[in-house]
Amino acid sequence: MTDRQRLITVPVPLGERAYDILVGRGLIGSAGARIAALGARAAAIVTDEHVGPLYASALTGALEAQGLRTTLVVLPPGEATKSYASLERVCDAVLEARIERGDLVVALGGGVIGDLAGFAAAVVRRGVRFVQVPTTLLSQVDSSVGGKTGINSRHGKNLVGAFHQPSLVLADTALLDTLPAREMRAGYAEVAKYGLIDDARFFAWCEANWQGIFAGGPERDEAVAQSCRAKAAVVVRDEHETGDRALLNLGHTFGHALEKITAYDSARLVHGEGVAIGLALAFRFSAFLGLCPPGDAERVEAHLTAAGLPTRLSQVPGGCGTVDELLAAMAQDKKVKGGALTFILARGIGRSFIAPGIEAGKVRAFLDSEIGTSRT
Amino acid sequence: MTDRQRLITVPVPLGERAYDILVGRGLIGSAGARIAALGARAAAIVTDEHVGPLYASALTGALEAQGLRTTLVVLPPGEATKSYASLERVCDAVLEARIERGDLVVALGGGVIGDLAGFAAAVVRRGVRFVQVPTTLLSQVDSSVGGKTGINSRHGKNLVGAFHQPSLVLADTALLDTLPAREMRAGYAEVAKYGLIDDARFFAWCEANWQGIFAGGPERDEAVAQSCRAKAAVVVRDEHETGDRALLNLGHTFGHALEKITAYDSARLVHGEGVAIGLALAFRFSAFLGLCPPGDAERVEAHLTAAGLPTRLSQVPGGCGTVDELLAAMAQDKKVKGGALTFILARGIGRSFIAPGIEAGKVRAFLDSEIGTSRT
Ligand SMILES: NC(=O)c1ccc[n+]([C@@H]2O[C@H](COP(=O)([O-])OP(=O)(O)OC[C@H]3O[C@@H](n4cnc5c(N)ncnc54)[C@H](O)[C@@H]3O)[C@@H](O)[C@H]2O)c1
Ligand SMILES: NC(=O)c1ccc[n+]([C@@H]2O[C@H](COP(=O)([O-])OP(=O)(O)OC[C@H]3O[C@@H](n4cnc5c(N)ncnc54)[C@H](O)[C@@H]3O)[C@@H](O)[C@H]2O)c1
Repeated sequence: MTDRQRLITVPVPLGERAYDILVGRGLIGSAGARIAALGARAAAIVTDEHVGPLYASALTGALEAQGLRTTLVVLPPGEATKSYASLERVCDAVLEARIERGDLVVALGGGVIGDLAGFAAAVVRRGVRFVQVPTTLLSQVDSSVGGKTGINSRHGKNLVGAFHQPSLVLADTALLDTLPAREMRAGYAEVAKYGLIDDARFFAWCEANWQGIFAGGPERDEAVAQSCRAKAAVVVRDEHETGDRALLNLGHTFGHALEKITAYDSARLVHGEGVAIGLALAFRFSAFLGLCPPGDAERVEAHLTAAGLPTRLSQVPGGCGTVDELLAAMAQDKKVKGGALTFILARGIGRSFIAPGIEAGKVRAFLDSEIGTSRT
Repeated sequence: MTDRQRLITVPVPLGERAYDILVGRGLIGSAGARIAALGARAAAIVTDEHVGPLYASALTGALEAQGLRTTLVVLPPGEATKSYASLERVCDAVLEARIERGDLVVALGGGVIGDLAGFAAAVVRRGVRFVQVPTTLLSQVDSSVGGKTGINSRHGKNLVGAFHQPSLVLADTALLDTLPAREMRAGYAEVAKYGLIDDARFFAWCEANWQGIFAGGPERDEAVAQSCRAKAAVVVRDEHETGDRALLNLGHTFGHALEKITAYDSARLVHGEGVAIGLALAFRFSAFLGLCPPGDAERVEAHLTAAGLPTRLSQVPGGCGTVDELLAAMAQDKKVKGGALTFILARGIGRSFIAPGIEAGKVRAFLDSEIGTSRT
């Protein structure tokens, strides 16, 4: 670490699975020493074809300088990479690299790479350690924290996977400088989400500071760290998502349904855009049910719109499907318990709660009012 | 349960993952009620084409009589079924059946089905519960106990998987009446193994009672229960195989290498036959190193031979490969730590221990003496 680097440490106190999330600009410069300190002798670095050319050689070099044997696995970018075929490919490469139980898998990339490489680490030899080096805003504030790993199934996203906590997360906010603007915005939806869940003050801070986050000022580091703290707090309360952790799914029941309907085609919709529309829908649905002041729903929509995010079903390129299609997509989602739909709703900004047993009829009426013309 | 049934309960006290292994003749008659008592609403039964026609309809009927919705997934029999492709097939079928977190996957079959279905249960929705109904002697005394699940990779057996404890194990010893004699013998190698590890008295009991085990007398139930107790005790001491549990691998370092060399072709060698040869080799290797009285190694060989099991490399149909091939196969095995070979050796019957850092040269010299003529 040089003097000009500000480093924020967010501990994730999960007992024997405890680890630190380090947030800072230029952190990758010290990644070699930090990862080597974990005591591994070898590392398999998993990345994608966008991120690899930008950052893999720096990371590989840094690890090798510390005496680690490294192997690089480069996958095609995009959601389709979270597949059984890629899982097999990564596991084979990790075994080929003779990674043993004390060694490491390092995920260098966005949520796709983190989820896939983390899952491979969870199952190779029934579990080897792994380190997350998230390179998108979404993965820095969300997917690299909490230990959820997995791949997609033809029945839906993330339906096959494991809980496997990383040994270390290195979130270098400078890596986001090369992130396409659209991906930056998509990740920002998750940042805003933390305020909406239970921290009205943070949401207000976001309303005032979002431009600094996008521009790469110190606000970016603060937003990443605060998001990690918020997520870590929920994860620590409910590591295996049997209760509270479901709050993190605010905006995701609608969001996942939209991703499914757009066939996970990122040209149409990326995850964070689905979440943005989902957040706006969750607040409007809450208002529709008389739970939330309509003014709060409007404030959510206004802020997401200001940040360049979509908030309406009509903004899904190529259409959002019919109400029946949306309902069917939600019903196969994993937040279904005993047949009834579970939503995360809100009584206002920062006042979300888990609402199990929401009748399909209510959802249908709400979606009808949102889509309007799509039914004949 | 009818009166004439003797039921032995072996508890596996693993804290919040604690479960019971029930052992008894005719137990499948009460499986419906016992599985329903776990509180699930649906069950996906996974089986193979040998076992399905014999027992699936009884189990399905029993579960449906208790109000559970059931789905049957039937896979080809054999080791090749422990593949990524089968994993995908089972996960898809389980998701298709809308199995939720409180529901069940039921493995009805031998170790192949148990390992595969257990792994699928571990990863579908990041973990659903599962029940083992083991139908081979090997799976009743070994693979269904301890929570190790997994599939094979092109780099070796069981290299991809998860630790996932079952919620219940129902070992109906009557199901073994239809088991081919060769499979029965193969499973018996694992029974004898428990005596050899740390229970000389049990090994002596086996020497006196093995015929009753094969014939299906009360000795069979006792042997299954005692084996489960032995395995459970080790598993409870070391759930994730970081230490002690490795003792269970007595005979397996050699055994796995032989399975690899025979390309997992069960026409040539089944797992238990590899283990039988491996047990005999482990004792002879221990004697070769001056650790174990040669008389004990001879007693091991004599008993396994009496039970119809192979004990010599020369008994591998089609040949056991060269010393170099055997060493290479052992080196990629997962019991390699930091490059050195770890063996389970013995100071005598019932006196096994973990021996890390065994030099390849010693192994080579021993194998040379065993193979003799295969080098030119
Ligand atoms: N595990 C969890 O808890 C969790 C939580 C939320 C989302 N997710 C998952 O995360 C995934 C989405 O993650 P994502 O949004 O990071 O997508 P992503 O990994 O696909 O990355 C988005 C795009 O940006 C590129 N990219 C990444 N870093 C870059 C950089 N620094 N410079 C230039 N380009 C870069 C990638 O190659 C890709 O094209 C989804 O699969 C979602 O299910 C997981
Ligand atoms: N998870 C563990 O801890 C563990 C431990 C030991 C072995 N294993 C695994 O177990 C597997 C071997 O198990 P296995 O020996 O049970 O093999 P298996 O499952 O292949 O069964 C052997 C054969 O017997 C048939 N069969 C099963 N039950 C029958 C019955 N009641 N009547 C008639 N035919 C029947 C099967 O169809 C198969 O053809 C290997 O893959 C091995 O790696 C796992």
